[in-house]
Formats: sequence, structure tokens, C-alpha cells
Amino acid sequence: MTTATFTPAAQQALREQTVELPSWAFGNSGTRFKVFGTPGTPRDPYEKLSDAAQVHRYTGITPRVSLHIPWDLVDDYTALAEHARAEGVAISVINSNLFQDDDYKFGSLTNPDPAIRAKAVAHHLQCLDVMHATGSKELKLWLPDGLNYPGQDDLAARQERLAESLRKIYAAMADDETLLIEYKFFEPAFYATDIPDWGTSLLHCLALGERAKVVLDTGHHAPGTNIEFIVMQLLRAGRLGAFDFNSRFYADDDLMVGAADPFQLFRIMHEIVKADALAPASGVNFMLDQCHNIEPKIQGQIRSVMNVQEATAKALLIDADALAEAQRSGDVLAANGLLMDAYHTDVRPALAALREAQGLAGDPLAAFRASGYEKKVADERVGGTQAGWGA
Amino acid sequence: MTTATFTPAAQQALREQTVELPSWAFGNSGTRFKVFGTPGTPRDPYEKLSDAAQVHRYTGITPRVSLHIPWDLVDDYTALAEHARAEGVAISVINSNLFQDDDYKFGSLTNPDPAIRAKAVAHHLQCLDVMHATGSKELKLWLPDGLNYPGQDDLAARQERLAESLRKIYAAMADDETLLIEYKFFEPAFYATDIPDWGTSLLHCLALGERAKVVLDTGHHAPGTNIEFIVMQLLRAGRLGAFDFNSRFYADDDLMVGAADPFQLFRIMHEIVKADALAPASGVNFMLDQCHNIEPKIQGQIRSVMNVQEATAKALLIDADALAEAQRSGDVLAANGLLMDAYHTDVRPALAALREAQGLAGDPLAAFRASGYEKKVADERVGGTQAGWGA
Amino acid sequence: MTTATFTPAAQQALREQTVELPSWAFGNSGTRFKVFGTPGTPRDPYEKLSDAAQVHRYTGITPRVSLHIPWDLVDDYTALAEHARAEGVAISVINSNLFQDDDYKFGSLTNPDPAIRAKAVAHHLQCLDVMHATGSKELKLWLPDGLNYPGQDDLAARQERLAESLRKIYAAMADDETLLIEYKFFEPAFYATDIPDWGTSLLHCLALGERAKVVLDTGHHAPGTNIEFIVMQLLRAGRLGAFDFNSRFYADDDLMVGAADPFQLFRIMHEIVKADALAPASGVNFMLDQCHNIEPKIQGQIRSVMNVQEATAKALLIDADALAEAQRSGDVLAANGLLMDAYHTDVRPALAALREAQGLAGDPLAAFRASGYEKKVADERVGGTQAGWGA
Amino acid sequence: MTTATFTPAAQQALREQTVELPSWAFGNSGTRFKVFGTPGTPRDPYEKLSDAAQVHRYTGITPRVSLHIPWDLVDDYTALAEHARAEGVAISVINSNLFQDDDYKFGSLTNPDPAIRAKAVAHHLQCLDVMHATGSKELKLWLPDGLNYPGQDDLAARQERLAESLRKIYAAMADDETLLIEYKFFEPAFYATDIPDWGTSLLHCLALGERAKVVLDTGHHAPGTNIEFIVMQLLRAGRLGAFDFNSRFYADDDLMVGAADPFQLFRIMHEIVKADALAPASGVNFMLDQCHNIEPKIQGQIRSVMNVQEATAKALLIDADALAEAQRSGDVLAANGLLMDAYHTDVRPALAALREAQGLAGDPLAAFRASGYEKKVADERVGGTQAGWGA
Repeated sequence: MTTATFTPAAQQALREQTVELPSWAFGNSGTRFKVFGTPGTPRDPYEKLSDAAQVHRYTGITPRVSLHIPWDLVDDYTALAEHARAEGVAISVINSNLFQDDDYKFGSLTNPDPAIRAKAVAHHLQCLDVMHATGSKELKLWLPDGLNYPGQDDLAARQERLAESLRKIYAAMADDETLLIEYKFFEPAFYATDIPDWGTSLLHCLALGERAKVVLDTGHHAPGTNIEFIVMQLLRAGRLGAFDFNSRFYADDDLMVGAADPFQLFRIMHEIVKADALAPASGVNFMLDQCHNIEPKIQGQIRSVMNVQEATAKALLIDADALAEAQRSGDVLAANGLLMDAYHTDVRPALAALREAQGLAGDPLAAFRASGYEKKVADERVGGTQAGWGA
Repeated sequence: MTTATFTPAAQQALREQTVELPSWAFGNSGTRFKVFGTPGTPRDPYEKLSDAAQVHRYTGITPRVSLHIPWDLVDDYTALAEHARAEGVAISVINSNLFQDDDYKFGSLTNPDPAIRAKAVAHHLQCLDVMHATGSKELKLWLPDGLNYPGQDDLAARQERLAESLRKIYAAMADDETLLIEYKFFEPAFYATDIPDWGTSLLHCLALGERAKVVLDTGHHAPGTNIEFIVMQLLRAGRLGAFDFNSRFYADDDLMVGAADPFQLFRIMHEIVKADALAPASGVNFMLDQCHNIEPKIQGQIRSVMNVQEATAKALLIDADALAEAQRSGDVLAANGLLMDAYHTDVRPALAALREAQGLAGDPLAAFRASGYEKKVADERVGGTQAGWGA
Repeated sequence: MTTATFTPAAQQALREQTVELPSWAFGNSGTRFKVFGTPGTPRDPYEKLSDAAQVHRYTGITPRVSLHIPWDLVDDYTALAEHARAEGVAISVINSNLFQDDDYKFGSLTNPDPAIRAKAVAHHLQCLDVMHATGSKELKLWLPDGLNYPGQDDLAARQERLAESLRKIYAAMADDETLLIEYKFFEPAFYATDIPDWGTSLLHCLALGERAKVVLDTGHHAPGTNIEFIVMQLLRAGRLGAFDFNSRFYADDDLMVGAADPFQLFRIMHEIVKADALAPASGVNFMLDQCHNIEPKIQGQIRSVMNVQEATAKALLIDADALAEAQRSGDVLAANGLLMDAYHTDVRPALAALREAQGLAGDPLAAFRASGYEKKVADERVGGTQAGWGA
Repeated sequence: MTTATFTPAAQQALREQTVELPSWAFGNSGTRFKVFGTPGTPRDPYEKLSDAAQVHRYTGITPRVSLHIPWDLVDDYTALAEHARAEGVAISVINSNLFQDDDYKFGSLTNPDPAIRAKAVAHHLQCLDVMHATGSKELKLWLPDGLNYPGQDDLAARQERLAESLRKIYAAMADDETLLIEYKFFEPAFYATDIPDWGTSLLHCLALGERAKVVLDTGHHAPGTNIEFIVMQLLRAGRLGAFDFNSRFYADDDLMVGAADPFQLFRIMHEIVKADALAPASGVNFMLDQCHNIEPKIQGQIRSVMNVQEATAKALLIDADALAEAQRSGDVLAANGLLMDAYHTDVRPALAALREAQGLAGDPLAAFRASGYEKKVADERVGGTQAGWGA
């Protein structure tokens, strides 16, 4: 095929697809060497939500925003949720922070000191309060705990402490709330990470119960890891809770999704489409989790959302019947060719048409750039402290 | 400490430690570019067992040998087992081969063709027959199946086929037999491997039952993977069935264990010692699985066994109480220092003494080199075909 | 842009582009675990050239074939060259083989034994004879030499021996002949490789003289290496002699070029187009060097050639002026967007039209599949020994 | 051998060996997620030098300290140099900083804007002023410039700009001053780095002249890179200017040297010893460049220095004649065994004796820990701002 034409089912899938935005993507971020600021950067959670709403305004598929506690602590969550609604978005997943308290130098949920573990557990109860105040049903936990040096602590003992801490958090959650547990290969720990891979995350989820699920972040794997395989395996196990989009050439580079390896993104979406996990009913929360160190943040989010949409659209173009037949017959080149045919097809005109049919601009990025929003907030947001990670 | 002195417990652990040898290590092996032969290479399973017995004669800790079917097919396993016994070793784990039949070009246990899957299952029944004939209680399965190209086959469908094939094999096994399932990052498949990581292996074991366990091979991971963490996690889950020693700088290089990163080997043995998994009662079968492409094979096995012993001895030297105290107090350098102290200690004299106390030569490698065995078999083994992988 | 329209310059570039084929791609290849044969595989250099000619017949851009000595040794090179011409192709680069002689177990051009080094040098003189007999002007040398174990040999001494061996080979070459020196990260050596990176290859070329140039093979780098950067750097230094196309997910997987990371291939072609290195006058010889372990070989070569063409066509679509302007202005997203715009454009219809204008089928792969050639040679080529690496 | 006894030559080498300390190792450092502070952290260059002097006081082999500009800017360098001398150390290499000015968001020496390039060049002239004021003869330049996204800038144009900027800096340097150019695989740039490998660094040095040399930092390579090979190659080319010690499991983890892979450190020191590059006359400046994110900084430096000494001592133990003979004869296991024999020998008692013979404590780390210095500075250094990277 050379011109993308979506089937009615594909069109519906594309219309229903949503991508959650991270509030922290609108604040400053950088490397250990330097965080560059930019005029107009939000200074509080309200302004972050306003910026996130811009992404939804132009793409139409990002109706939800994740918060990060304590970065997004406010006095009045009813007011914040109301602000979000007024801007056209909703507050969704609540993320805990286990890496910035001085007490967590040697671990949080795994710390040898029971008092510090209790503090880290209590932080999640605080997050649950935010969930109740905002109506969020998902608590996301990325555990930065780990060791920099062999011998620094006992790897097995840390797993037992972790299991106990997780049990306490899970026990505090309601029946309609989900605990999302994220794994990461390395960083900020440089010898051993306490949840380094999907197997460890899954083992803890299995021990906890059905409402504990794994979060896969595309940047959190060893070099060469076949990520679509893990997506497939977690979907097969019924334990893929959320998917953090971003991309990387080296480590956890947190570049815009699709920027480093668009073909990998397409292969991932192929597994998701095959497992029918794109639909809201699948329970998988697709979200962006990436930094914009040098590119404009709202634009970066819009581009990322478009990249996800394009990869999804290509995955939806695959001729499943023909592919299955080629696979059955052992025709390697034909089977691969059917996949590549969809990948090489330019879906952008068809996606533009789909957007226009929904009253959106065909090119969301161009439309946003032309809107004057960036200049407006740069002019308005003077004084105060630009939001960031506060590392 | 600067002079190794073993505690009685450590001495007993070292005396009880065993390492299983692979019959195929005594045949020729190489790369896709070239397999170099050497005079004296065994030409049949009998000669392989004789060579393996040499390793046991000099090290005293390798009383068992793994066979690989069909490479080690013989007409009379009673005779082969008797030959092994006469040489001082016993036949142990039986390994299946799923990578050399032309039918397996697109997979064995995962092949889209049910007839080929049935053939691959049947091969394991043949292996079970060998087990019954030899008294072996463990069946080891490394699945080379995978894809070279995206789209070549359906990743999820292959998992379902694999699960079904494994169920059939497992169902044919007796209550006192164990199925060992090995995972591997890549090779011979270059896009996706059907059991690429410990998580996948474990999921299949959990689905099968208690007698299915994971095999960890040190060379089968992505670059940078923390292997001792996985050892710890599988021990914690009670599912580490066997451990394949070897070492690598790049991919699955299959170098002599301890040759590339002796400190990693020490860290792995530290986790094993901590979990008390060294003892025979742990049910973990420690074995070598490596190639000798350019070095003499029997010598290479002896050196490897010595490397495992030395790493074990160092791990047994660690002052567990002092380490636990340093870890509790957050004294990173002291904790790391206690580990490094054991690692830097020269255990070779103490190990030599231990060997001599058992009537062995203090330096097994020197003793074997001086024995004349290599010249003897080079002279004797003339004609016939040297054993190898037959790739 | 959404429909590819080539400028006249781009059209000319595409018409002039050529890709050299490797004779060995038409023989059998595989992994250390298994080499699968297929009916119709060539049994001698004549049949390999006939198969290579098929690729040229359908793609129109592969007029040259590389030979590998001794795999392609024949008694009469005049006859072989005549056969090639009759089939429509020409014999081009001559490749030496330093990895399959038993004497090379511990190295060829770097071997501690001067007699073995002399033998390896002499092999290149034999290759020069083939060049003179066939009219080839380029000698390609990939050095497999290296060490499996630290201490096995002296790294520095091996460099000196290598330098001396290369000087002898270079001295034997005529003024219009080029020595192409290829580097590789690892394999078949697993600890140290004697020419492991472009820096080492370049240092030797600089020491030799202007007619010594570097060969870059896309599969011969460490994980994460930015290959287009090296292409750029070698072009800048005037020392990129040849480019070996293939692709990989893990190590030197030797998959079809563009199969693993088509975006990387596009970025590489972008550097080549920018440096005007596509033109024959640039002196860079672009060639395929890859294996077809499980896919049909002629089809695999055709698909690979098409992948190179498509990546080239996309690179030629980039709006260089707009890109330069966006780069100058620091508009990261606009600059990246201009690149991605070209990448996402479907160039296949325009390439098909270009082919048809040259009297070729628009879809070379489909045309070849329909031609009946595969069945014909499978029927004809009965008996004899299928060509392969003979590992 | 099992007890280390140093030859007179080895003893002299160990007595002459020096390791330069980085002033910034005594300030705070961390990851992009968090920088942990510690009581007693220096607040200015004077206090950093005092801390560095402690390392020299206890190890006796760290008489020099590198400064980093602008972090170590002071009004009066004569006073600072005097302070250093009074503390027993000397100011040595001056490091420029090209990663923390807002102007450098898109590059410094490679920036598309000539005004910013001029600014970055001028910063080096400022560094030269510091050199003249302190008597330093070496200027070290690590270039963090690079791209996060393909297309963001022109890779080749950046090389030309870099070459021009470097020419200006080099031209401003006196005949007895050396320009040290460091390369790094990635970070802070995540797509392309402008000096990513030793080849690029060397090409620029060759273009500049004899007083431009390469800096090798052990953490700045792709996974799996054989670092001792590069050490050997740069020594062979006469262009190894400095060596930055640290260690890593994953990326540029900047852990204490020898902590992650002590065997690698030993292999590196083996190449250095073989090339006689340990001696001051070799012109190679060995230095630490690492972070102490969670461990005490002065202790971390002392431990690192001891690790370097131990690896050096082991390398000096290697029986060079026996090794050469084993290598010549192709006895892989004997050659490797000779290397491993030295590596497994416990050199700590002999090093302690050597220290004691020089009037130092046998265990520098224990002596420093017992000295009370840490408590003293923690009590004294109250108020002010702890030194750090200021990211």
C-alpha cells in the first residue's frame, strides 16, 4: 500500500486512543551537568495544567494529566481539579517521589532503617489522599532505590523490606485503586537497582494481588532489549498497567518518543494493537514520561503525541490476515514485508484528515506554534520560581 | 585479612561443593567462522566421559557429567553409565537439542506447524528415555527458537505454542524429575528470542508446576545486566534450578568462567553463599557450560573449576556479621571494604592445602599437565571423527 | 511533504547510485549452532555470479560483485570474468580470508610466528594475482585476529607485527590499487580484536599511505555507537574507502540492511548525501555484506538493495536550505522535523516510477519472485556441494 | 606466587607513581535526581585543597590537584597556590567548563553562532591566565557539546567549527603548555557527541600539533569497549596525555576506580607498565575524575588511590619474561595464567610495608578515619554554601 486509508475499526481506534501527559514535562529538566530554563516555564501546578491543556487542545487525545507529589502539592486539590476541568483536562495518575528526601540516601522502601521505610510508606498514604481529593484511581511508584557499591547493602534483605513496604501501601488502597510499579535498569543507583527489570516488578505484583500492575518505561532497559517482547509478555500475563513513552539512544535519555527509533515504536504499537490493548477497556494507561532539556516543552509534548499517533496508525494498517498467512507458510520476507509495508506508508495525510473531521487543525504542532501561546506565557510568567525537579 | 583461613563451616562447604561438567566441552567448538580441531579430541561419548573424568581426578569436585542428545546418543546407556562409573563420574543432566534439525529452521517447540512442534516434544520424550536408562533426574531445555525479522511470526502466538509444548513435556515427566528451562538474550535468533530473559522462563515454570525451574547461564544476558541480582531473585523465588558457569566480554562468548570478570563471579558466589544455596540440599545444580575454541579442553575445564572454587572460597571468607553491621549503619565504604577484603585475599594456598588434605595435588592444572594424558590420547585417538557441534 | 517528488539532481543521484554485491551472500551461511541449506544454492563461483546477476537484472543498480578468496578460487579467471560479463555484472573487490586456515588459530598478520605472518602476507599476494586476472582494483582485508584471554599475547607487539605485515602488502600493490582495511568490535575474538575500531583502522591507513582506506561495516560497532558520526568523520578525513551494508539488533547479526533500524540507515545516507559521497567520483564503494540464514538469498539481496535505495531517496528529499536555516536559528524541533518529514515520506511510488522509466519492474522483488528463477535453479542444481563458509 | 615481593624496579616504580586529585571530587555531586550534601563539605577552593591535601598526607602519592574553572575561581591565585603548598600539594591541570553557561545550550566551541564560539574560546584564555598565575602547564578540555536530536545541527559543520575553535586555543598556548582533549561516548548530549571517541580526539590533536594530546576517561566508552586496547594504542601513537580514573557498571557512573571491575583496572595498568608509561618522564598525567554521591569524599579518594596502587603493584608483579615465552609458544592457558597469578596475589601487605618504610600508615584509610579530620571540618564548616557542580 502507498496511501493510508484506515478501516472503520482503525478509525475508531484512533479516535478512542488517549495519551496521558506528565505535569513535570512542562517544568524544567536537564542533566546532572545543567538544567536550562526557558521563559514561560510554569511556576506552579496550575500553570503546568494550563500548559498540558494546550497539548490536548491541539491534539485532542491527551485528556488526562499525571501529577507528581510533592512537586504538585497544593493546598486545595478541589480547586486544582476544577482548574484542570476548566482547561479541558482531568487529573489522573498520582506519582510518588522516593528520591529527593535526604533520608532516602540509602533507600526509601528498602532502607535498612525501619523508620525511614515507614516514612516512605507514609508518603504513599499522602499520595492516596491526593488521589481521593482529585478522583485519581492510580498510584504510580517508581523505586529509585539501589546500591552504588557491591556489599553496600544486602540485595536479598532489601527485597524482603520492599515486599513488606509494598504490602502496607497496597493494603491501604481501595478496591477500585491500582498500584502501578515501575522498573528501571539503572540510575540513580549505579551498581544494583532494587526493581531493575520487569521480572522483579511482576514478582512483587503477583505477591500483592490483582490490582498491582507493572509499568513499562521504554527508556528503562538494558541496551538491545526487545521491548515489544516485554509488552507482549506483560499483556499476556494481564499485568501491563501503564506504558511510559519516551525514547533513547543510550541510557534513560528521556527524549521525545519516536525520536530515536520510530521503527521500534511501531513494533511496540503492533503488539498493543494485536492484543487489543489500545482500547480504554484494556486498562493499560498510555502516557508520556520524558524530559525536554533543550526543546520547547509544549511543542515537544505535541510532537511526541503525534509520533505515538503515527506509529499507532501504521500498526493499524497492517493486514493481519495476510500477515498470519505469510507467517504460517514460513515466508519470512513476505511476512516481514507486510509489516514494513505498513511502516513505510505515510499516514500523516490520513491523520490530518481525521483530526480535521474532529474540528482540530490537521497539523497540531504548526497550529500551536502559530497560536502565540508561548509568547503570551513568556510575557505573563515573570517572577516566581520556574518549576523543575529541584535536584 | 591477608591470609585466607577457612572456618570449619567454610571448609565443609568447599569440600561439599560440586560442579557438573558438560560432555560437549570436550569436543570441538568454535565460531561461525571456524572450528579448530586438536589432536586427542574425543570421538564418541565414551571418550568424552573419560576426559571429563580427568577433571574430576585432579579437582575432586566434578563427579557428574551432563549429556547432550543427540550428540551423546549411544546404543547402550547401561554400558555408557558403567563406563562413567568405572572412570569415577556419573551421568547427570540430559540436555535436549532443538537447533540442529532442518525442520527447526523457523522454530521447534514454537513452530507454527503442529507436526514440527510434536516432533520437538517427542525429542524430549527420547531424552526422558535416556534419563531413565542412565538414572538422570533432570532434563535441561535451552530453547533456541526465535525470529530474525520483525513480523516473521507472531510473538504472542509463539508463547502460547511454547506453553502448550512445555505442558506436554512436563506431563510426561515423573514426580522426581525436574524440568530445567534456560533463557538466553539472543543468538541464534537475532531479532526476538522466545525465552529471552529470566522473567519469561519463570512465567513458564510457574505455569507448569513446582518441578519446573529456571537455568541461569552467565553469558545469556544483555550488556550490563546485574547477574547476581537475578541469582538472588530466583533463589528467593525458589526457582533457581541450575547455574551455567562461563564468562564473556561481549555476547555469549562462552569463555572459561572467571576469565573475563572474576569480581562478578565472586559477587555471584556471595549471593549463593548468603542464601545457603551452595549445599547439595539446595537443589541448585552448578555446572560449567562453555566452549574451548583455542585452549586445550581438559585444561580449560580444570582451570574453570579452580576459578569457581577460588571465587567460592573468597565468598566464604566474608565476615557476615561485620558486613551486616556496616550495612545497617550506612557505612558504604566499610561495607564495600569488607567485601573487597575477602575478594583481594589470596585463597590459593589455603585451597591447595585443602586439596592436599584430600589426597589431591595442590595445583590440579599443573598435575594434569604433567600427567601425560594429553599426549597419550593424542597418540591413541587416531582416525574416526572428532566430536563437535556439527553445525 | 507527503508525496515524494525527486528533484532532477536527486533523480540523477538515484540513477547513478550503485551497490556492490558479495558473492558469499548467495552461498549458505548461519550461526555456530546451525547452517541451514536451501535447494538451488550455488555450488561454485559461476553459479554465485549468475545469482548475483539476477539482483542486478531486477534492481538495475548492482553491477558489481565482490569475490572472496579462497572461496571463489577458480582455475580460469578470464573465464569467470567473461561469465560475469555475459550475465551483466563485473567482478570487483577481492576479499582475503584470514580466519579459516588452521595456522591462523592464534592470528594471521599478527601471529607471533613470523612464518605464519609471511603466509598470511603471501595470501594477499595471491589475492592481488586474482585482482590482476579480473581487473579488480580494490583489495579488502578484514582482520579477524585477536585474543580470547587477557595475557594470551601482547597487544602492543601485535600492532607492530600488523603494521609490518600491512606494509608488505601495501608495498606489493600498484599505484591504482586501493587497500581497504575493515574494523570490527568483536568476533571471532572475544577479549581483544586487533583492529577493533575505526581509529585503529585509520591509524594503520595513515601509516601506509593515501591508497589505504577504512571500511565501515554497520554491524561492527559497540552497542549504541553513532555510526553516521563515524561515516561523517571518515568522509571528512578523506579515508572512507568502502561501506558494508547490513543490520543488527545485537552483535554482528548480519541481517538485511534496513531491517533492524531503517531510521539509522536513513541518517547514514543523510551524511553521505551531504558529503556528496554517493557519486561514483567520491571513491566510496557501497556494498552489501550480510548473511541470509533463513530467508531466500536472492530475494534477501533484492530487498536489501531496495532498502538502501529507499533510505537514499528519503535522504535526497531533505530540504537542505530549510534545514540549515532551522539549525542556524536553534529551532531544534523544526530542524528535527525537517529530517523526519523526509523520513516519513513514502518514496516507494516515486522509486517504482523511476525504475519503470528505466525499463525495470516497479517492484523488483515481486518481479523476481514471479520469474521462476528460484524453482529453475532448485531443479537444475542437483548434486555437488552447496557453497558456504566452510566453518 | 602467593606472597607479593616487589623487585627493586617495582619498588621504585611504586615510590614514583603519582595520581592527581580533582578539586571537584571534594564538593557535592549527584545525579539529575538528587545531590546529597554532607556536613564538612568544602565551601571554597581553599577548603577543597585542604581536603585534597589530606589524601596526600595519608597516601603519599597525590601531590597534585586539578582545578576546574569557574568553580575554582578565586581573586588571588598566588594566595591559593601558596595555600596549596602550605598544605603540601601543588595546583596542576586547569579544566575548562563548557556546559553550564546558558549560552552553551546548543554548543560551545561548536555552536552555530560565532559569537558564542568566541566566548567559549575566550573562556580558555581565562583558563590560560589561571595557568600562568598558578604555574600549571596543562589545560584540559572536555567538550560536552552535542545534539539530542537527529537533524538538530550539521555533524560535519560542527567538526569544522570545533577544529577552528581548537586552533585558536592552541595558538594561544605557550610552547611548554599542553592541551589535553577528552572524549566521551554520551551525556549530556543524547544523540550525537562532538568528540565521542578516541579517534575523533586524536584526529583533532593530529591537526593541532604535538602539544595536543588525548585524555582517556575510563567511564567514557560504549558498553564492552576494551579500554586497555585504547590505552595501548594511544601510548603507541605517543598521544596519551592524561588518564582519568573512575569506574562504572553502566554509563559514566563515576564510581571509585576499581570498584566495578578491578580486573579491568589491572589489565589497564599492565599496558601502562609494559609501555613504561608509569614513570613521570612518560608525560602521561594519571588522575582521578569521579564523583562521591553517597560515600564520604575524602575517604572515597583515599580508597581510590589505594585501588590504583594495588592494581599497579599487581601489574608490576607479572613475570614479563615468562609471559613473553608463553605467548610465543601459543600456550594460551599458561600465558593467561601468568597474568592471573599476579592478579590473584594479595599485594596489600607489601604495599603497607612500602608505605611504612616511607613513614606513612600502612592502611591510609583507617588512619584517616581515625584522625578526626571529618568531625573537625564538619564542626568548623558551618554556614556558607557547600561547593558543588551547580547544575
